[in-house]
Amino acid sequence: MDRTEGTPVSNTLLERRYGTLGKHSPLFYNEPIHLVRGSGVWLTAHDGTRYLDAYNNVPHVGHAHPRVVAAMSEQAATLNVHTRYLNDRVVDYTEALLATFEHALDRVFLVNSGSEANDLAFRIATQHTAARGILVTDFSYHGNTSALAAVTTGLTAHEGLGAHVRTFHVPDLDDRAQAGRDEAEVLDEALADVDRALASLQEDGYGVAAVILETLFSTEGLPRVPDGYVSGIAERVRRAGGLVIADEVQAGLGRVGSHFWGYQRHGLMPDLVTLGKPLGNGHPLAAVVTTDALMEQFGARNMYFNTFGGTPVSAAIGEAVLRIIADERLMDRSERLGRLIRERLETVVESRPRLGPVKGAGLFFGFGIFADDERREPDPATTKRLVEAVKARGVLISRIGPTDSVLKIRPPLALTEAELPILLDALESAIDEVLPRSGS
Amino acid sequence: MDRTEGTPVSNTLLERRYGTLGKHSPLFYNEPIHLVRGSGVWLTAHDGTRYLDAYNNVPHVGHAHPRVVAAMSEQAATLNVHTRYLNDRVVDYTEALLATFEHALDRVFLVNSGSEANDLAFRIATQHTAARGILVTDFSYHGNTSALAAVTTGLTAHEGLGAHVRTFHVPDLDDRAQAGRDEAEVLDEALADVDRALASLQEDGYGVAAVILETLFSTEGLPRVPDGYVSGIAERVRRAGGLVIADEVQAGLGRVGSHFWGYQRHGLMPDLVTLGKPLGNGHPLAAVVTTDALMEQFGARNMYFNTFGGTPVSAAIGEAVLRIIADERLMDRSERLGRLIRERLETVVESRPRLGPVKGAGLFFGFGIFADDERREPDPATTKRLVEAVKARGVLISRIGPTDSVLKIRPPLALTEAELPILLDALESAIDEVLPRSGS
Repeated sequence: MDRTEGTPVSNTLLERRYGTLGKHSPLFYNEPIHLVRGSGVWLTAHDGTRYLDAYNNVPHVGHAHPRVVAAMSEQAATLNVHTRYLNDRVVDYTEALLATFEHALDRVFLVNSGSEANDLAFRIATQHTAARGILVTDFSYHGNTSALAAVTTGLTAHEGLGAHVRTFHVPDLDDRAQAGRDEAEVLDEALADVDRALASLQEDGYGVAAVILETLFSTEGLPRVPDGYVSGIAERVRRAGGLVIADEVQAGLGRVGSHFWGYQRHGLMPDLVTLGKPLGNGHPLAAVVTTDALMEQFGARNMYFNTFGGTPVSAAIGEAVLRIIADERLMDRSERLGRLIRERLETVVESRPRLGPVKGAGLFFGFGIFADDERREPDPATTKRLVEAVKARGVLISRIGPTDSVLKIRPPLALTEAELPILLDALESAIDEVLPRSGS
Repeated sequence: MDRTEGTPVSNTLLERRYGTLGKHSPLFYNEPIHLVRGSGVWLTAHDGTRYLDAYNNVPHVGHAHPRVVAAMSEQAATLNVHTRYLNDRVVDYTEALLATFEHALDRVFLVNSGSEANDLAFRIATQHTAARGILVTDFSYHGNTSALAAVTTGLTAHEGLGAHVRTFHVPDLDDRAQAGRDEAEVLDEALADVDRALASLQEDGYGVAAVILETLFSTEGLPRVPDGYVSGIAERVRRAGGLVIADEVQAGLGRVGSHFWGYQRHGLMPDLVTLGKPLGNGHPLAAVVTTDALMEQFGARNMYFNTFGGTPVSAAIGEAVLRIIADERLMDRSERLGRLIRERLETVVESRPRLGPVKGAGLFFGFGIFADDERREPDPATTKRLVEAVKARGVLISRIGPTDSVLKIRPPLALTEAELPILLDALESAIDEVLPRSGS
């Protein structure tokens, strides 16, 4: 239990970790980072190295934000109980949270993780529609429960896809395959793929319970989708009797800059919105936001209770996060810094044929890395080298997409304009090392 | 957001709550309690009324325990990240937690709720056995995910029992139906019921993945089971190729007094142990403890990750809870106070024919309330009146069992011997009111 900084503990710590959490519990980077402190967008490792965190969306308002810590500590020292007693903290919080949604989305189930939220959304949709079929994109992840393992396409789940699940492919206007094609043509083709999936569910007798969409398509690699794509999916699913679930675990809480919730970028009005990761700035807090009608129907038929969902401590933390986002104008910051980053990165990628266009929205962005100047073959090995080279320069990022060859850059919204050059210089310098300019 | 004490806010608060959490989110008591503070076993309501909490097992070491609050606050102010970085807090905690188990149970998955833990245990068991069948008692509850709704028998879940689920009945030696029968005969009959359920799963082609048992059978109403019952179930399930899941959400962490984990009372060695409610004293912390072999098999086949599972804050809280249990000798206290309570209550129930024998273990106890002196008909209405009468005397309890007519008395282990008479006097006085002695 020696936590003295500076001692060479990491190898031993890794062995001890293998001894309790096992060897499959995932770790980042070739050499895992042993962290001891965090503040704002900064993480300090055991050896004293400081990293700019450009990966974590969970510490949304910044690592160890003093107002979040104070709200948590004060409430924990006062009272922490489940919601079968009345308490004003949970009511205050749910009112503040629902105020960020359109009027029709006026009810909330508080739960403990994005997995619990998506699992509950499936229960609500399946019961409401009396159908079982679920539509999901062909490279996505929505959580780790049994019901969610059955719809997992973006990582390994031994169960395989459920018989009641159909997948569709999300088009990317930036793909070379789409070059020169009309956007309307790409849209029609993509929606025809959705139609095919819906028809298959109907033909096989499952019916359509819901489509689940992560509104940034981040696991999918941040594809740039045609205008009208997301609303087109929703329209088709509803025509088939299904509900629309917007998974905001990645895109939510101002991350996309232009809107508070990612689905709003697409002009979508979901039936169920699931919230997770950033909602409690690291505290296990998640939610399903829905309509009065859907909650009423589900509540009348099920004795649903969640022991840790909506405790005063979770509510106090959630409320502090919302206030900080407002007070520190983090959504505006996400939009402004996102635009600055995009401008500079566009110059960078334009000068290097093996780098694809800048993708994403607000403070969630990246670009593809290719093996050839014509950008035909994605290059996961080089992408991995680049992530490590950026880390060697003191900045933490990762990679996503079906071939793991799109950079995943998603800093806490606490990132400041002054810190921007540290992130961008590290990225550019790493690119210079890993992907030298032709002729240089 | 007026939280000033003493203002008549509760009705308004209830209306506001209905407006966000809906009307089906459960509340206790005829008149819900609006709580503002907690400390030890004491809860303070908005109107200043203080209640002795004899219901909540979640605040295991006591409401707002200063050491838990300090551990949480200190760690939250320092660092809170997921387990894809190395951090010593999570390793320290998992070592301390696993030290409370037998050597064979040497690996742990950290998750956020008992529901997540049981859902994951099902995934592990189903994959390991390549079978789907689940055995569960005929009045139990193990969580709220889709997979757990399919095995829910003890409360309303609209999905109904899954086709792959079979139930069996837990015998109660205290039942009038068993009066005068030999314990061995009751045991044989009960295990024959398990055999029948297993045979049905095999005949219908589901095979046997697992049995899940809450080792106090609390939802079932705290039945007194024959010696050898639980180990007999385990033996039969294993012979059929299934695994044994011990759900310790109720019985765990010294609650039963005689043992740290409830399954140990039954001489059982489970394959998977699921932990929840009290583990984080109210913080969303839960776990699946298992063997190296089961974790290795699951980990090799699945990319399992849990974002909030095992953060440094969760680990710091979990570790503080374990230390407090040891330092304050709470397991011994549970045994000692449990014995004192049992002695006094046995006198009480013996003098009243409509009260059944004292049931439970350690600081989880109760007794049945019947409509007749021969204890043939359970009496839920009188049980409810008794719970309300106890509340009117400033003590919070509830009721359980298939007919909701067994008292559920389950105080935080922070209960002291000095506080015992408050609980017992309130209970006895309420009994005098609701169930007056014949002839008095």
